[in-house]
Amino acid sequence: MAPGDVFDADPDDTEAALMAATYRALCEHGYADLTIQKIGEEFEKSTSLLYHHYDGKDELLVAFLGFMLDRFEDDVPFEDVVDPWAELQDVLDHVLAPGMDAEREELTSAMIELRAQAAHDPAYREAFSRHDRFFRDRLAAVVRDGIDRGVFRDVDPDRVAALLQTTFNGAMMQRVTTDPEDGGVPVDDVRAELEAVLEDRLLQGDAE
Amino acid sequence: MAPGDVFDADPDDTEAALMAATYRALCEHGYADLTIQKIGEEFEKSTSLLYHHYDGKDELLVAFLGFMLDRFEDDVPFEDVVDPWAELQDVLDHVLAPGMDAEREELTSAMIELRAQAAHDPAYREAFSRHDRFFRDRLAAVVRDGIDRGVFRDVDPDRVAALLQTTFNGAMMQRVTTDPEDGGVPVDDVRAELEAVLEDRLLQGDAE
Repeated sequence: MAPGDVFDADPDDTEAALMAATYRALCEHGYADLTIQKIGEEFEKSTSLLYHHYDGKDELLVAFLGFMLDRFEDDVPFEDVVDPWAELQDVLDHVLAPGMDAEREELTSAMIELRAQAAHDPAYREAFSRHDRFFRDRLAAVVRDGIDRGVFRDVDPDRVAALLQTTFNGAMMQRVTTDPEDGGVPVDDVRAELEAVLEDRLLQGDAE
Repeated sequence: MAPGDVFDADPDDTEAALMAATYRALCEHGYADLTIQKIGEEFEKSTSLLYHHYDGKDELLVAFLGFMLDRFEDDVPFEDVVDPWAELQDVLDHVLAPGMDAEREELTSAMIELRAQAAHDPAYREAFSRHDRFFRDRLAAVVRDGIDRGVFRDVDPDRVAALLQTTFNGAMMQRVTTDPEDGGVPVDDVRAELEAVLEDRLLQGDAE
């Protein structure tokens, strides 16, 4: 699920067009240098919508986070897992990929900067709480599915999902705030160890 | 190891006094509202040092991160582990404690805000890379010690430490950027699952 995909919407949808403009401006300028004006420059329609509806960049960015999550909720199905173990591997392949292209690195940096705003802004905190619940529930559903089919051990799906999400959030933050050559955590080590842990916890033992 | 302890230094040490002032101002105001002036207000000595030596708050804050790490490196011994398993439990007790007092919550919020600066500022990135390497090496040394004594399985200490550190960084970020009642990850779930994982990985199997 590429982050940009959520904006591939009807070109007549003004809200989607504004959110796509916000996304482009955020990737290009980062949080600190972003202004409503710079978002307006990316927005091909009338900018009056922008200035009438949003008091400042933070209000628009919180709306952007909500919009992204609405689209994810519509697009990411909960019921069609074919192979729970393969599904978890896909998530690891995506979140803990060895490298990131420039667009994804820019978006990840911007998301970490937005998250840091949540340390003092309740609107951001609510948006990221909802974000974390959605992705954690999705992970727990995959684990629960594996237990129901008898391919995973009888673990606590919510606890496994909590650890996975925490590791993913940590990995995302580390990727854009440290350099492995200067001492930052090598993502390959995290991936290898997490996969070994999941094999131990989910596949070994009484399910075999 | 309480974060404030690193500043319990000789009161005649001007650098330590300046760093303690930076620490207090950072906890009180957070990153966004912090200014060199506000740090000066917390500093009981001449403020000329401040204005002559640091071009802006970011230069001072990067120096602050380096100072904290120097003190940690001096204070946290690598050689006196008595019981590696108990040592890891102590780390979990500290990092994944059910609650945080106000000072620790303020410092954690400020550290996440500083980390987010590393997404676009190489000086912060270097400081946090060094920070992560120090704590990860410390964790790896405890795991290696357990293997050497025959109480832990023959795992890869660097990989285990990489996963631990990533989880800790994720947990720290989540604690100050989400609310569990709105969907944020419950720290108790992370603690319970991580402890179960470490038991599986380190204590079970061929070491028994």
